[in-house]
Amino acid sequence: MADNKPLKAKFISLEGGEGAGKSTQIRLLADWLSSQGIPSICTREPGGSDGAELIRDLLVKGAVDRWTPITEALLMTAARTEHIARTIKPALATDKWVLCDRFFDSSIAYQGAGRALGTRYIKDMQTLAFDAFKPDLTLILDLPVKIGLARAKSRENAKTDSEDRFERLDLSFHETLRAAYLAIASDEPERCKVVKADQTVDSIQTTIRQIVKQKFNLPND
Amino acid sequence: MADNKPLKAKFISLEGGEGAGKSTQIRLLADWLSSQGIPSICTREPGGSDGAELIRDLLVKGAVDRWTPITEALLMTAARTEHIARTIKPALATDKWVLCDRFFDSSIAYQGAGRALGTRYIKDMQTLAFDAFKPDLTLILDLPVKIGLARAKSRENAKTDSEDRFERLDLSFHETLRAAYLAIASDEPERCKVVKADQTVDSIQTTIRQIVKQKFNLPND
Ligand SMILES: Nc1ncnc2c1ncn2[C@@H]1O[C@H](COP(=O)(O)OP(=O)(O)OP(=O)(O)O)[C@@H](O)[C@H]1O
Ligand SMILES: Nc1ncnc2c1ncn2[C@@H]1O[C@H](COP(=O)(O)OP(=O)(O)OP(=O)(O)O)[C@@H](O)[C@H]1O
Ligand SMILES: [Mg+2]
Ligand SMILES: [Mg+2]
Repeated sequence: MADNKPLKAKFISLEGGEGAGKSTQIRLLADWLSSQGIPSICTREPGGSDGAELIRDLLVKGAVDRWTPITEALLMTAARTEHIARTIKPALATDKWVLCDRFFDSSIAYQGAGRALGTRYIKDMQTLAFDAFKPDLTLILDLPVKIGLARAKSRENAKTDSEDRFERLDLSFHETLRAAYLAIASDEPERCKVVKADQTVDSIQTTIRQIVKQKFNLPND
Repeated sequence: MADNKPLKAKFISLEGGEGAGKSTQIRLLADWLSSQGIPSICTREPGGSDGAELIRDLLVKGAVDRWTPITEALLMTAARTEHIARTIKPALATDKWVLCDRFFDSSIAYQGAGRALGTRYIKDMQTLAFDAFKPDLTLILDLPVKIGLARAKSRENAKTDSEDRFERLDLSFHETLRAAYLAIASDEPERCKVVKADQTVDSIQTTIRQIVKQKFNLPND
């Protein structure tokens, strides 16, 4: 890459249910991009900017029914709007790739499908907030719900201040999420790639790197 | 009233710039309704329910530019959605009148006009969040901006933890608010009544009671 004109910075989101491996894979992807001479930032939702992290706290902690579904969708969208303006767009503008742990597909899955507000409703709300802004590539980590929840649970047990408001929802909620992500992938095959996540960390990362290389015409290592 | 069928509970909002006298007048109105045998609750925005008060904290404190205008509008709408679902609708359903210190016209004035997002934009957002729900009567307290700010300032000086994120905006912002409220009143003359607020507390309250009596066919005391 060093000798070539730098590629326009790309925005990649990682999606999938609880414990799918998003946070694990995003760090490995950033390391690899760095080894390829591509600077990137890792960020996450809800959150990713000072204000958005305060909104995150309202969303990921506390009673499952503490917000009405519409309030929940508005808070997610508020956090995202802030995150885009303060973190994502400034990074892209200074040629840093953005790797984002969850983005708007999480709202379509969790509030649209899980909370039954509908895909159209969530899309209308997002359009109102930030128009057509979207990732260049979305990696959807797919695995059986029980495996993901077991992974997430074993990790949560190690923490004290549990951000488990969504994890505590029942199995059928998580099955709905999984189906919603697969529906998004089939609706937008250009942007979204499904990655089987019931594999080893390394083999998932290998698949992800191949997808990224191909999508953005990166040279082979 | 005692012998008659109780009137369907009404929803009244009080609007106006900083220091217009909303909080002062709402308490006097509640007292008077109570003396007429009409039970009511007083509530306020942003806030008015447990969750909405947490969102309020994010909105009324801190740097003037801590949120983008769209984030600010989304947070206001999130708080309002919660407030309607948890406080306003339950009160009306149990035959309590609701007196609300600021409601959606504040978003049209502050975010629509003040932050320049536009009336249409704010209305679309509110419709998405809570459809056509609206007050039966809105009292708009109107007074010269400088008088209101001076009143608000003398009150703030008595406090420590200042909720003054909006008060600190410049005079032209507040002039814009005042004009926006008057425009709302002229757009919706059935719902909105302008009350001149550069009067004594008592004379404003007398006017308010007359408007309420007439609007809802209450008997004279
Ligand atoms: N491929 C894998 N095989 C087995 N365990 C894994 C794998 N990937 C991640 N894990 C483990 O599963 C747990 C959850 O992984 P991670 O935090 O990356 O998931 P996540 O998708 O970010 O979850 P959440 O949605 O809850 O943030 C961690 O303890 C992690 O070490
Ligand atoms: N008619 C009046 N004449 C003079 N002072 C008044 C009058 N009404 C209220 N005040 C005083 O002005 C200050 C602001 O009044 P109040 O808190 O009722 O206004 P407000 O509209 O609720 O303001 P804010 O928008 O900041 O909440 C208070 O100190 C109050 O005692
Ligand atoms: Mg994670
Ligand atoms: Mg007040």
